[in-house]
Amino acid sequence: MSSLFLRTLREDPADAEVPSHKLLVRAGYIRRAAPGIYSWLPLGYLVYRNIERIVREEMDAAGFQEVHFPALLPREPYEATNRWTEYGDNIFRLKDRRGNDFLLGPTHEEMFTLLVKDLYSSYKDLPLAIYQIQTKYRDEARPRAGLLRGREFVMKDSYSFDVDDAGLEKSYLRHRDAYIRTFDRLGLDYVIVQAQSGAMGGSASEEFLAVAENGEDTFVRSPGGYAANVEAVTTVVPDPIPFDGLPAAHVEDTPDTPTIETLVAVANEKHPRADGRAWTAADTLKNVVVVLVHPDGTREPLVVGLPGDREVDLKRLEAQVSPAEVEAFTEFEKYPALVKGYIGPGALGEKSASGIRYLVDPRVVSGTAWITGANETGKHVFDLVAYRDFTPDGVIEAAEVRAGDPAPDGSGPLELARGIEMGHIFQLGRKYAEALDLKVLDENGKLVTVTMGSYGIGVSRAVAAIVENSYDDLGIIWPREIAPADVHLVATGKDEAVHVAAEALALELEAVGVRVLFDDRPKVSPGVKFKDAELIGVPTILTVGRGLVDGVVELKDRATGERTEVPIGEVVKRVLEATRPRG
Amino acid sequence: MSSLFLRTLREDPADAEVPSHKLLVRAGYIRRAAPGIYSWLPLGYLVYRNIERIVREEMDAAGFQEVHFPALLPREPYEATNRWTEYGDNIFRLKDRRGNDFLLGPTHEEMFTLLVKDLYSSYKDLPLAIYQIQTKYRDEARPRAGLLRGREFVMKDSYSFDVDDAGLEKSYLRHRDAYIRTFDRLGLDYVIVQAQSGAMGGSASEEFLAVAENGEDTFVRSPGGYAANVEAVTTVVPDPIPFDGLPAAHVEDTPDTPTIETLVAVANEKHPRADGRAWTAADTLKNVVVVLVHPDGTREPLVVGLPGDREVDLKRLEAQVSPAEVEAFTEFEKYPALVKGYIGPGALGEKSASGIRYLVDPRVVSGTAWITGANETGKHVFDLVAYRDFTPDGVIEAAEVRAGDPAPDGSGPLELARGIEMGHIFQLGRKYAEALDLKVLDENGKLVTVTMGSYGIGVSRAVAAIVENSYDDLGIIWPREIAPADVHLVATGKDEAVHVAAEALALELEAVGVRVLFDDRPKVSPGVKFKDAELIGVPTILTVGRGLVDGVVELKDRATGERTEVPIGEVVKRVLEATRPRG
Repeated sequence: MSSLFLRTLREDPADAEVPSHKLLVRAGYIRRAAPGIYSWLPLGYLVYRNIERIVREEMDAAGFQEVHFPALLPREPYEATNRWTEYGDNIFRLKDRRGNDFLLGPTHEEMFTLLVKDLYSSYKDLPLAIYQIQTKYRDEARPRAGLLRGREFVMKDSYSFDVDDAGLEKSYLRHRDAYIRTFDRLGLDYVIVQAQSGAMGGSASEEFLAVAENGEDTFVRSPGGYAANVEAVTTVVPDPIPFDGLPAAHVEDTPDTPTIETLVAVANEKHPRADGRAWTAADTLKNVVVVLVHPDGTREPLVVGLPGDREVDLKRLEAQVSPAEVEAFTEFEKYPALVKGYIGPGALGEKSASGIRYLVDPRVVSGTAWITGANETGKHVFDLVAYRDFTPDGVIEAAEVRAGDPAPDGSGPLELARGIEMGHIFQLGRKYAEALDLKVLDENGKLVTVTMGSYGIGVSRAVAAIVENSYDDLGIIWPREIAPADVHLVATGKDEAVHVAAEALALELEAVGVRVLFDDRPKVSPGVKFKDAELIGVPTILTVGRGLVDGVVELKDRATGERTEVPIGEVVKRVLEATRPRG
Repeated sequence: MSSLFLRTLREDPADAEVPSHKLLVRAGYIRRAAPGIYSWLPLGYLVYRNIERIVREEMDAAGFQEVHFPALLPREPYEATNRWTEYGDNIFRLKDRRGNDFLLGPTHEEMFTLLVKDLYSSYKDLPLAIYQIQTKYRDEARPRAGLLRGREFVMKDSYSFDVDDAGLEKSYLRHRDAYIRTFDRLGLDYVIVQAQSGAMGGSASEEFLAVAENGEDTFVRSPGGYAANVEAVTTVVPDPIPFDGLPAAHVEDTPDTPTIETLVAVANEKHPRADGRAWTAADTLKNVVVVLVHPDGTREPLVVGLPGDREVDLKRLEAQVSPAEVEAFTEFEKYPALVKGYIGPGALGEKSASGIRYLVDPRVVSGTAWITGANETGKHVFDLVAYRDFTPDGVIEAAEVRAGDPAPDGSGPLELARGIEMGHIFQLGRKYAEALDLKVLDENGKLVTVTMGSYGIGVSRAVAAIVENSYDDLGIIWPREIAPADVHLVATGKDEAVHVAAEALALELEAVGVRVLFDDRPKVSPGVKFKDAELIGVPTILTVGRGLVDGVVELKDRATGERTEVPIGEVVKRVLEATRPRG
């Protein structure tokens, strides 16, 4: 450590919010180069390369073949699949000196598809699974949390190519198994959840989420084993209700009720229910206006109708309308039909005068009766029955999911938790193969479109995710296979004999294959050295100090804090036991 | 090979000119993604990673520490050193969604300097040498020769940081030694030559060139051991000649002599020398007009005066005027003083009426007398004496170097050869540290500017350079440590027993650590298999075929073509001998 390119910091960096970001900067693993763009310092790059190695070993062991694409990619393939436009502001675009358009690849479906098309032409060549570990770029609107959401990052991305759906299913499961082995080795606390495939197209899709309070993803799980990203949760749809006997809709005065809360109060006060039960927010139909910004820049207002006791979940909504992005609606003056606070189905729908698209929550089934806006200030309509009195343009999964909601498969009430997306596997199907004309001859000599799977792992993100899973007040606690060293060897005090013995021990340990980080700094106090050791997070801390006169050194487990005095003659044996537990 | 993602080609790709490009595409190592931008196929990436590993091992062994910078870099640091402008069209620039300027890093001096400034502050922290192996970008005007000159490529770049010049000298020599070990292991036929440091600034500088007919660099060497890139060769300057007794200059009619050849003929015919020796081209002073295009876009005409028997070497000229680029001069109408074919010193110079800068070859020393243009059509001036009759604005090394020219150190006549720049080491000095204010406290507590060295290796380029050094009519011949496998095992014929024996052999070899590429393709003829094996270039080709009934297989050395029949029981032993010659 006297020559290691490292400076630890006592203070958290000003721009860091999450523990992994703070600790990785403080412990000297990474340094910010620009917003969302980081440089790796020596210890950080060792950790990064350990993760890269594990990922590569598991991909190779599964029989996937490694290739490597450029990051600087021509526009044309992305034009063919329309993603040049669909990505909107989310990719980096540039021109070369001749004015040709390029992008910095955010993902490589097009390139993989074209490469296979270039080389292969027969069903005999399939199945094929190829992967790369490569730097990707996304121009995130809000880069944050250090390595967790950056603008330059490393992904492992694989693609499978099969001649039919049964083959795709097999390829998908092979990747799923390889991912389980990979994330197990990375030492992550993770869950596999159903995912919404979003902008990528395709059908079956699962995510591997590292369970972490600071995760950007919310997921649900049920006692019966259902697990899904909140974006992928489907609502349990109630049975429709016959219209017979339902009262007719009637407009009532509800002055000063622009919110659900005020509306429920006024309704109970002035228009109480006949059956004596009080109105609740769940009896109202809230109509939330948003603007969809399409990749080509066009802006479309959209109204989402949902029970008044639920909020719109923006991430769920965005997942449904992708590649469009969602913005707040403020243009009331342009749409006089929308009476702020009193918007109702009567003014909505593509076929209405306003022409504004109107989508409703799945709970708004035929025959449900609602209190909702009458499109006039101070007025609401009561007993407005869905599909009798109004017909929305469609249904949308955009309402928040709440703890206690039923799992869609009947496996019990959902609980919510947060996670970091570490891996994503999905059955892309034929979208890219069709767009780029990837066909092979089948057994009968007929051309068939290839079906693809797409599989990603966030390699640089894993460095941060592992820290989020494994730290304490003092610093990082690395799983051994990820750690930058096996042993952090601290020599304390001014006694020359201590330093000589420590150095001999370092060499002895290295000779038997133990990776040693040796704190040989001559003028640094034991306190500072121990603080640094805890912060850096190597799993075993070995201290050579005062005990040396009695022939003992101290072995400390970074994770448990357990300290053991060990005779110096037994150190190598004990360290090997600690570093290679049960073979 | 029945499942390897590979297609070999019988035909050379249309856009390939040099052997490495043709062979790497034909043998299925790389594929073009865009001009100057390549994708790696599985065999290619194995080779690339072998080279990367060797480079990393040698850097680590030398005690240099690995870091890793982003490729997407903010403008500001490059603005501080003026390189944002100086790079002109040669870098890729882009803006993020907020309109901030970025570049794709062509080289990382600024980032390394700032990182060290960020972490270090004392002479006690130095010396330091850090490196990265990283993807770089240059928007080459003419990407060519496949991996030899691409627009996205991988470099290893190191930087050393020292408190004084003596330290820099030591750091430089440590790198030089590490480079020698690296290039030796890569199996390259290379020379170390003096280099011109060009756009990078700095002083002492050497290049490691792989000797190759198709190299872009020309270098010279002498019997006495001088070696230099042709751009760095300095001309042996003759002694000045006293003016006493030299005849006065006189203008003569030389009709229709716009070229040196016609001028020499007319001079000998109409104005023969008094001493009876014939005029030669070397007696004439040729004045070549070019345009310098500066990074800010301004265009400056420049005239280079040189003996008429030599041409201007554009690369030598560009190296001298960098970061300006050189273009052909065509704007005669804008400069009426320049009489095409009859330009002479009388119309040239910053202080002349034309104001055009005039630089001469070092051979144009004081007292040399010349036949040169009289700035009037059909007229030349004879006996025009340098520094008596005209004074140029300066001297420039822009004339071609020719075989037989004397080495500047007196070590004999030069010979010329071509090479591929594989490495470049140089003493940058304080240029970047000054521009970015990298200072440390010295032993006396005084702030001193750090002095830096910069050291590069072309990692992806090495894949192609090694092929240029090692191929024949049949294909590539990989050095063993670089090869994608140790043994290319070919099973021939339709005999099931052959395939069973071959597969058993493949497993047996892999069990002892031999990397096997097994051609198990069932319906491919032996001829095609052998052709592919020669093309792919694995150093040992092992054939299991008809000989199996007699208990023998064939071992072939790819490089020498030598074939040996080996009893099957001895194969593993013999292969190990072949793959691990003398430990």
